[in-house]
Amino acid sequence: MIKPSQLLEHWQGHRSLTRRVIEAFPEDAFFNYSIGGMRTFADMVMELLGIAAPGTKEIATGKTVQLIEKINHNNQKAKILELWDKSTYDINTYWAQIKPEQFQDSIKSFGQFEGTVWSAIFYFIDNEIHHRGQAYVYLRALNIEPPFFYER
Amino acid sequence: MIKPSQLLEHWQGHRSLTRRVIEAFPEDAFFNYSIGGMRTFADMVMELLGIAAPGTKEIATGKTVQLIEKINHNNQKAKILELWDKSTYDINTYWAQIKPEQFQDSIKSFGQFEGTVWSAIFYFIDNEIHHRGQAYVYLRALNIEPPFFYER
Repeated sequence: MIKPSQLLEHWQGHRSLTRRVIEAFPEDAFFNYSIGGMRTFADMVMELLGIAAPGTKEIATGKTVQLIEKINHNNQKAKILELWDKSTYDINTYWAQIKPEQFQDSIKSFGQFEGTVWSAIFYFIDNEIHHRGQAYVYLRALNIEPPFFYER
Repeated sequence: MIKPSQLLEHWQGHRSLTRRVIEAFPEDAFFNYSIGGMRTFADMVMELLGIAAPGTKEIATGKTVQLIEKINHNNQKAKILELWDKSTYDINTYWAQIKPEQFQDSIKSFGQFEGTVWSAIFYFIDNEIHHRGQAYVYLRALNIEPPFFYER
């Protein structure tokens, strides 16, 4: 019903939108603003970076990777965006190594989350959409117009 | 890589979580609370109701449906939840009428949004995750603990 190449393009489309949401934040608000005791968007993006490329690598190689949600970013969005772009490249590289028949295989993502390859990848994407949706509220509260959700 | 029945279960899992997010809102806040000039969660849920079952019906029957984002709810969450459950049933019914080979077909959802059957369904799901993520911020700002994102 959907080809692996289409799912990759779908995901990278979402990642391209998330990149533009990161860009839309003022540097200070990205690292410090939050609502209701939630994490800053920078903290959420570190989680996304910790999941996306490492999670894809784990699926492609079969070797357990650790979930690392902290990055040395020196409060610089440029550093985060650089890591984002490296992840984009790494995801494409590892994706090419996943065999089509692998998507129904069982896996334990990051050595702890049980599921199938497809459900793990869907989780990576859904979790990104979830947190980016939260960032839209942060931007609106900061009186900044976020990018259109339907533009990828 | 993923079977239609698995995608349906994935979607209904998300819809079950969204239902619990609706339940978590106090009646008044559901219809009146918002941040940064955004819509209330009630308004977003009406959009989701206008998309999910009608969009699935359109795919199953091939007959164009109108996008209706307003519902007569009398400011009662119970009415919204009743419509939510009716949609759950309708989605299952129409889903069973979609042929596996149809997912790559081109369609114009609600007579206006061009894509394929799979990309339309992904949009329905992604849009729900996006707005539900926003509702999580509303709940946190209201000092209410939302349901766990990973519980479906």
